[in-house]
Formats: sequence, C-alpha cells, structure tokens
Amino acid sequence: MEVSTIQALGKITDANKIIITSHIRPDGDSLGSMLGLSHYLISLGKEVVLAIEDEVPKLFYFLPGIQTIVYAKEFIFDKNYDLLIVLDTNPDLSRIGETLASMQVPILNIDHHSSNNRTADFCLIDSQAAATGEIIFQLLILANAEITCEIAVCLYTAIVTDCGFFRYANTTPNTLQRASLLVERGARPNEISENLEKITLDDLTALRDVLSTLELSPDGRIASITLTTETLVKNISSTDLFINYIRSIAGVEIAIMYKITDHDMIRVSLRSHGADVNQVAQTFGGGGHQRAAGCSIHGNIDEVKKQILTAAAIQLEGKQQ
Amino acid sequence: MEVSTIQALGKITDANKIIITSHIRPDGDSLGSMLGLSHYLISLGKEVVLAIEDEVPKLFYFLPGIQTIVYAKEFIFDKNYDLLIVLDTNPDLSRIGETLASMQVPILNIDHHSSNNRTADFCLIDSQAAATGEIIFQLLILANAEITCEIAVCLYTAIVTDCGFFRYANTTPNTLQRASLLVERGARPNEISENLEKITLDDLTALRDVLSTLELSPDGRIASITLTTETLVKNISSTDLFINYIRSIAGVEIAIMYKITDHDMIRVSLRSHGADVNQVAQTFGGGGHQRAAGCSIHGNIDEVKKQILTAAAIQLEGKQQ
Repeated sequence: MEVSTIQALGKITDANKIIITSHIRPDGDSLGSMLGLSHYLISLGKEVVLAIEDEVPKLFYFLPGIQTIVYAKEFIFDKNYDLLIVLDTNPDLSRIGETLASMQVPILNIDHHSSNNRTADFCLIDSQAAATGEIIFQLLILANAEITCEIAVCLYTAIVTDCGFFRYANTTPNTLQRASLLVERGARPNEISENLEKITLDDLTALRDVLSTLELSPDGRIASITLTTETLVKNISSTDLFINYIRSIAGVEIAIMYKITDHDMIRVSLRSHGADVNQVAQTFGGGGHQRAAGCSIHGNIDEVKKQILTAAAIQLEGKQQ
Repeated sequence: MEVSTIQALGKITDANKIIITSHIRPDGDSLGSMLGLSHYLISLGKEVVLAIEDEVPKLFYFLPGIQTIVYAKEFIFDKNYDLLIVLDTNPDLSRIGETLASMQVPILNIDHHSSNNRTADFCLIDSQAAATGEIIFQLLILANAEITCEIAVCLYTAIVTDCGFFRYANTTPNTLQRASLLVERGARPNEISENLEKITLDDLTALRDVLSTLELSPDGRIASITLTTETLVKNISSTDLFINYIRSIAGVEIAIMYKITDHDMIRVSLRSHGADVNQVAQTFGGGGHQRAAGCSIHGNIDEVKKQILTAAAIQLEGKQQ
C-alpha cells in the first residue's frame, strides 16, 4: 500500500530493529540515503543493520558511516527484525539480492523511480524527487531531526549523484533549497564533488581508448561508444563520465554506451536530453528514468548494437510526431 | 569609494543613460550579469548600451538579449552618459579595453574578485559571492525587481559558470538558495547546462590529443597539459573542460594548462583544490582566485614550463609548512 511521508515515519518510529538495504551496484544516492537515514535512526537508539548484497565501491569510502555497511550474503542476521527498509529500488530479488528479498519482515520501500512496482507492504514513492536522498531529507525534516554534518554529507552526496550536480532536468527549486540547507549544516560541495569525481590515470587512458570507439548515426542524433573487456579491466572510477561526455556532443539526442562483459553479456546504458530512453530499455527488459536508463542483453555485440539502434531510432521518430 | 548595495542601487536609479561592460574574453558570469542587470534597467525605461571590447563566444548565443551586446570598438557612443557599470573585473584598460577605459563617465564597479583594485568611483565588491551574478541578484531583490524568466536564465548562467555547477568551494548556502529562486522563476538547469557544456566532435579529438600531452610531477601533485597551436585552431568550445579534467586526477593538487599561441606567447591556466594558484599567477603578472588563476608569459614553452613548475612547487611547499 502507498503511504504518506508521515505514515512512513510512523512505521519507522514504531520499529526497533531495522534493516536498511538498497540495490546492487550501489551508487551515491542509494548509499547516501541509507547512511543519512541510519545516522538519524541510531540517534533515536534504534538497532540498525545496513546491508547490501554487493560490494561498496571505494569511491564512496568518504561517506560517514560507510564502514558499518555489511555484505548481506556473509552477515548473520537475527530472526526478529521489525522492518526492512528498501531504498532507491524495487524490493525485488534481482535488485536487492536473494538474502534480503527472502526475509520474512515487513517492507517499507522508499524510492523516487517512476517505474517502482509498488509491491512492498508500505510504499513511499515520490517521482518528483530528484533523488531518494530528497525523500529521506523530507522525512527527517518532518521528524524534526537534527541534520548533523554527517547526515548532511550523506544526503548531499545522494542528491548530487542523481541530479548530476544540479544539471539534469529533475533539478527543482526544492532540490536546490534542500541542498542549500545541507551546505548550511556542513556538507562541503567542493569536497563532495572532488571525492565523487576523482579520476585515476587509468580513467584517462580508458577515456582515450573509448573516444576512438565513437560511432555517430548518419543524422548525428545517436552517438555510441563501446567499452571492451580490455578497457573494463582497468581501474575505472565510473563509466558515467564517458557516456555523459558523449551525450554532450552538439546535436546528439541519445547517447549509448555498450559494455562488453566476460560472459557474452552486453550491458547497455542510455542517456538522453528528453527522448524517453526508459522505453528503449524496457523493450529489452531493463528500465530507469526518461533520460537515463539501462538494460543487459545476451548476445553478440554487433547484433545488440543493431537492435538497440533500431529501438532508439524508433523512439526518436515517435518523439517527432 | 566603496558603496553598499543600496548605495549602488541609488547610483543606478539616478542614472538614465547607462553603459554596461565587462572584461575581454567574456564568460558566463560577465555576460549573464550584464544581461541580467540590463533586462531590469530596460524595464525601468533606462537607455542602456551593452558593450564589450571583444567578441561574444557562440556558446552564449542562447542567453536572452545577447544580440544587443555591441562591439565597443566599432560602436558610435554618444557623449553624455550618466554611468558606466563595469562588471566582474577591474575597470582597467587591459581588462575592459581602450574605448571604455578612456570614457569620461562615472564608473560603478561591481565585482566578486578579491583581487579587485577598488579604483572605480563607486565600488560594490563582495568577495563572498561565488559570482558577480550573485551580487546582481541581491541588487535586484533589494530593488524589489520582478525576476523574469529572462533575468533568471541570465543570472543562473552567471552563477553556475563561476561556481562550476555548485562544485567549487565558493558555493555557499546563499548560492544554492539564489539558484533555487532562479529555477522557480523559469531558469531550466538542464537546458542551461546543455548549452554551456555542449561539445563538438573537434572537442573530442582535441581532448584525445591533449590527454597524450599529460605530464605529472614526480610526486604526482602537479599535472600539466599542453595545447599546441594545431589543437587550438580546432573548433574547441572551451578548454576549461581539459584543465578541470586534469585537476580531478587523484593526488593532483595543482593542474596547469599551457596554451601555445602564435606569437610565442604562452597562456598559462592554473587550477587547484586549495593551494593558492593566484599567488603563482601573480608572480608572472597574472591573477584570479585562490583555486583558479592565469597568466601570460612571453617565451619558449620549455622555459615557461620550468618557471611555472618551480613557482607551483614553492606554493605547495609553503602550504605544507
């Protein structure tokens, strides 16, 4: 069932033993939201377990409390939890992993993805929020929580991750207003951006390699790059950089990044300036947002490219009509 | 003399025929501030001339009113202006050009650079502001001006340019608060960022070229890149991208970009995470901010590199003590 922010707060307040999780391939929004919420819950004296069925990328080690996140598969959970809070994703096995998805605990799902399937016991979904971190912020303000410096750093990280440092279309007056308060409470914009945007020398050589794989559609509206297994074994901080760069080419409406993994599985990332790439991704069983989505396709790279390009071109034509 | 915001507003209100100018090599802050202010003054019925002694880069053609800016050297000015408003720079010949610097008109100088020389008749200098656009915003709020969509777009562009989309250390709660109001009044963060960060295919090949010129100091704290004349003749949108990229390398404290121009003049740009590169630039007659500065040096590239590297290393050592 859908719940209001105040109802969600009620569920959280009533619970004493709480697990907080989020999606595999954790990012700034999922981790920042988990930690921002947990700092508050711990201050209330709640017993909190932060668990993810994936590794935490080193990039996020600067987040206060990050060392308290446990690897779900190896952690020995008690039997009697009151609430499982799933952040920034559907509470599905494919997104939160087997360990957590199979728990017999009431689920409160807090998410900002419009594609959320609303299957949890309690759903607080706000697709107007640029990030799940914005919903957590609202929750804490409603709870009259003290926004400590630690919370501010976590939630600021969450917000800037999902609104591309206030450059994406999901950036609202509220997003900036909330960010303003978080900076007032101690989040340092430059330190957070330097941590999130730190690159390695491997990133530089990878970028050079990737730039030479650039392919443009004849009309210049679709640009794509390919990351080979050789590139992917490098110590790359984040491949988002590459696709965002390609998306910035004048005239390009859809940017595509193909990652060739070891198992003949092509991971496809899609970005746009307005064209609905979520629909393209959904055609192949993936999803995301209108301007940022992804999917994974089994098969040969040339075949996958053809399929994706066709779907992307159809999407652009539909938009024109 | 130094004036308060309200005194500056008084000077502007008293004047009827006003020239607004800013520095050569105009950027988002100088142009956005000029236009944001002029939209308001025109709404008051003032006669306004917007003049710069340089070309307006195509990148900024999206700014409302940009076509009203005239090239100072070719424009036929009247004799009887009431006020010359100089934005975002010292009112010096070397910064605003001969035509405007030689005018016999009272000067109101509005700037956020701490290095401002305060030689104008009236100086409204606020080095706490991330951008001159923030000072103009404050002025308009104090004047109870209606912040139209046009003004919002201009001032948002001004602000994001100089705080690196809210990623630099000069980003304050006020910066974000003001940006929030500008978005509420119609500035679209995604459209503005897409306009400012649009790149060309030439940018991509230039980036590839530039990445191969990367030099790291033995301790990894100073990184530099060199733009040759061959690279510079390409249609590059902004070389800021290159130096910001280099600044992001883990461990790098000072990033340097050398541009070799035709006349044996090396233009040096410096960026840091905290080291005072303004001092480095000042050693060679340049200037700027603590974290972003520049200078021009006559001479051979290898010689210039040695001088700059030495000065940068001294600056880093000084910081450590």
